[in-house]
Amino acid sequence: MTTAKRDTYTPETLLSVAVQVFNERGYDGTSMEHLSRAAGISKSSIYHHVAGKEELLRRAVSRALDGLFGILEEEHACVGRSVERLEYVVRRMVEVLIGELPYVTLLLRVRGNTGTERWALERRRDFDHRVADLLKAAAADGDVRGDVEVRLATRLVFGMINSIVEWYRPGGRGMAEGDVADAVARLVFAGLRTEHQEPGAGIRARGSGL
Amino acid sequence: MTTAKRDTYTPETLLSVAVQVFNERGYDGTSMEHLSRAAGISKSSIYHHVAGKEELLRRAVSRALDGLFGILEEEHACVGRSVERLEYVVRRMVEVLIGELPYVTLLLRVRGNTGTERWALERRRDFDHRVADLLKAAAADGDVRGDVEVRLATRLVFGMINSIVEWYRPGGRGMAEGDVADAVARLVFAGLRTEHQEPGAGIRARGSGL
Repeated sequence: MTTAKRDTYTPETLLSVAVQVFNERGYDGTSMEHLSRAAGISKSSIYHHVAGKEELLRRAVSRALDGLFGILEEEHACVGRSVERLEYVVRRMVEVLIGELPYVTLLLRVRGNTGTERWALERRRDFDHRVADLLKAAAADGDVRGDVEVRLATRLVFGMINSIVEWYRPGGRGMAEGDVADAVARLVFAGLRTEHQEPGAGIRARGSGL
Repeated sequence: MTTAKRDTYTPETLLSVAVQVFNERGYDGTSMEHLSRAAGISKSSIYHHVAGKEELLRRAVSRALDGLFGILEEEHACVGRSVERLEYVVRRMVEVLIGELPYVTLLLRVRGNTGTERWALERRRDFDHRVADLLKAAAADGDVRGDVEVRLATRLVFGMINSIVEWYRPGGRGMAEGDVADAVARLVFAGLRTEHQEPGAGIRARGSGL
């Protein structure tokens, strides 16, 4: 791929090279020269496809954001009890993150130095709020515990999901995206313990049982 | 603090300035010049305290690692059922992370370019394995669900805990470290759902109850 000297790129394939370079060097640390070398085509050939690196960034993070917002339009995210919709969204977030791994990785690393980065951060916050609203609705239904603040729970769940980009490698150790999505859904909704008791609840239960 | 021109630094206070600069600029991107400017003392004054920036890095990540490994020596981490010890360790990890926030943040960002960084990564892996062993023991006791692979569960739980460095700010919004530790312990061990049922289990339970 990197030996292709002639410009056989489409906007799509150029984007996939650019995202790889952005993730390796950081967006700020990437120049058009770096992109040109990685793609094996001249800078002017790149300018034939896009106005500059910021356009590549915008396209790349849009792909991740479209994937994430697309989840919220899916039937199971819109119909049914809030807790079921939330569980569906959490599972699908993991699948989208893994399916669009380099794009979501880039999105999560955006820091906000350019207009495009600030726009991406804003859209990420919108998405977080949509999920937090679902969690709030599930708590109002009494289906989700009330003793963890919604904002904090949302952050912790997103923290767990987003951390997957740090270690997941496609094809590595044969861990399918469905397995990871199942594991996240189980941990987030049912927890690690086999006896689903609060700390201390076991003692009370035993006491009243005797 | 930054106006102090005379060298009133101790190794401890110099370390706290260095860690702040490392976290802002990245360790690789930090020069002795940057450290000298941030501390408001000359480079030779810094060399009076330490051999160079790698020694500052070693001291800083040692502080984080000592905090984490110290947990494993505490009584509640050593005595009792594995699942209780694990829950204690998870809770204490959150407390140490928040209590030593800049040091743990630096530790989590270490990438492995120098000998000190590789040593720190190695120690982090040791710690991860110790926690994974505890999870394995709890699963063997039947206290922790067997349908999420230990290695994956460890990664996800560490992912949730480590993500706290991305948003936690001391004194911000009045969220105490104990509140965050409680929330993590509740989510990790008992999950979000108030009815602790597997997806689909509710339908079975209702079916058999009628």
